[in-house]
Amino acid sequence: MSLLDNLKWRYATKKMNGEAVPQEKLEYILEAARLAPSSSGLQPYEILVISNRELLEQLKPFSYNQEQITDCSHLLVWAAWDSYSLEKLENEFHYTLTERQLPLNQMDDYKNFLWSAYEPLGKDWHAIHTSKQAYISFAMAIAAAAEQKVDATPMEGFNPVEYDKILGLTEKGLKSAVILPIGFRDSTNDWNESLKKVRKPFSKLVTEIK
Amino acid sequence: MSLLDNLKWRYATKKMNGEAVPQEKLEYILEAARLAPSSSGLQPYEILVISNRELLEQLKPFSYNQEQITDCSHLLVWAAWDSYSLEKLENEFHYTLTERQLPLNQMDDYKNFLWSAYEPLGKDWHAIHTSKQAYISFAMAIAAAAEQKVDATPMEGFNPVEYDKILGLTEKGLKSAVILPIGFRDSTNDWNESLKKVRKPFSKLVTEIK
Repeated sequence: MSLLDNLKWRYATKKMNGEAVPQEKLEYILEAARLAPSSSGLQPYEILVISNRELLEQLKPFSYNQEQITDCSHLLVWAAWDSYSLEKLENEFHYTLTERQLPLNQMDDYKNFLWSAYEPLGKDWHAIHTSKQAYISFAMAIAAAAEQKVDATPMEGFNPVEYDKILGLTEKGLKSAVILPIGFRDSTNDWNESLKKVRKPFSKLVTEIK
Repeated sequence: MSLLDNLKWRYATKKMNGEAVPQEKLEYILEAARLAPSSSGLQPYEILVISNRELLEQLKPFSYNQEQITDCSHLLVWAAWDSYSLEKLENEFHYTLTERQLPLNQMDDYKNFLWSAYEPLGKDWHAIHTSKQAYISFAMAIAAAAEQKVDATPMEGFNPVEYDKILGLTEKGLKSAVILPIGFRDSTNDWNESLKKVRKPFSKLVTEIK
C-alpha cells in the first residue's frame, strides 16, 4: 500500500489489546526512525524501546493514566539531546567522515560555522531544536508502523520531567521529547477507531503562490 | 517500494535541475502532509507552495543563498500558528464535530481542559508547540516525495523573520517553521548524491528495556 493509504488506515489508537508486535516489525519501525533526516545529519536524540511491564506501570501515572502505556506492546520514547556542544558536533562529523572514508578535518569549517551559530542561541534553544529533529524521526516511525499494520498512538500527553527522572535521562544529557506506544487495536473497545478521520480541506491548509 | 526503500533512496539534494514536478505528484506530497497527525488534531499550521520565480529569487538571500531555493520546482513552507487561543481550538473542534455529524458541544470539556493547560504556558511555548506539529507534516511530505521519486531538501537554514515579512505571515498570525524545496536532482552537479548515507548504528540510537 502507498504512504497515503497507510496514513488513511492509521488513527490515534485509544485502546490496544496487549498483543506483542513481532520483532521484525518493531525493527522495521525503528529502522525508519533511524533513516529519518535531521539537521546537519546529527540525529541529536536516542530512542528508548520499553516493553518492561513494571516500568510501563511506573510511567502510566505520568502519562495522564492513558491505557495505551500499559496495553501497548512497546513504548517508544524519543529522548533528545539537552544541548549541543562543539565536542558533540565533532564526534558526529568524525563518525560520518570515517564512514565515508574521508579526511577527519573535512567538515571542520562547517563544524565551526555551525557552532558559531548554535552556541549564542543557548541551551533552551538547543533543546527545542534537538526535539524538533526527534519529531521528524517520530513521524517516520508513525508512517512505518502504519505500513506494517501496527497500531500506534502519537503522544505528547506525558510529564517529561518525571519521565526523565524515571528513565535516568537527565544524567545522560537527554530530555524526553515525544512518545509512541505501538501495538494492536482492541476494536471492540476503541471508541476512536470508527470515527471519521478529519483533516482540514486543502483550501484551508494550502496556499499556492504561482 | 517500501518506506524504508524510499528513505534509503532520498538524500538532501544539493543541486536541482529546474524541472517542474508534475501536478499530481505535488498533490500527492501535499496530501501526505495534510494527513499527518497533530496534537489534538488541530493541524496548527498552513503550507505555502511557492513556484513564483520572482518570489523565490526574493527569498534566496534569506536562505543562505542556497541554490535549491531557485532551482527547485516548488518551495513548500510550513507556517505554524504563532499561538493558540480558545477561539482557535473551538473553531477546529467544531469543524471536526460537524464533519462527524456530532453535537457541537461534545468536545467542550476537552477544549476547556486543553486551554487551561495551554494558556498558562504562554505564546512562546505555543509557537514552539505548533512548530513541532508542522515538523510531523513536513516529515510526511519528505516520505511522500521520496515515494514519488521527487527530490527534496529538508531545510532550516533560512531567516524566519525575513520569510515572515516577505510572505506576509505575521499579520496572519503565522510563523515560518521549516521549508522543503522539491524538484529533481541535477546528478552531474550534485556533490551530495554519491556520498554514502550515514546514520548512527542501532546500538548508539536505540536502547531496549525489556
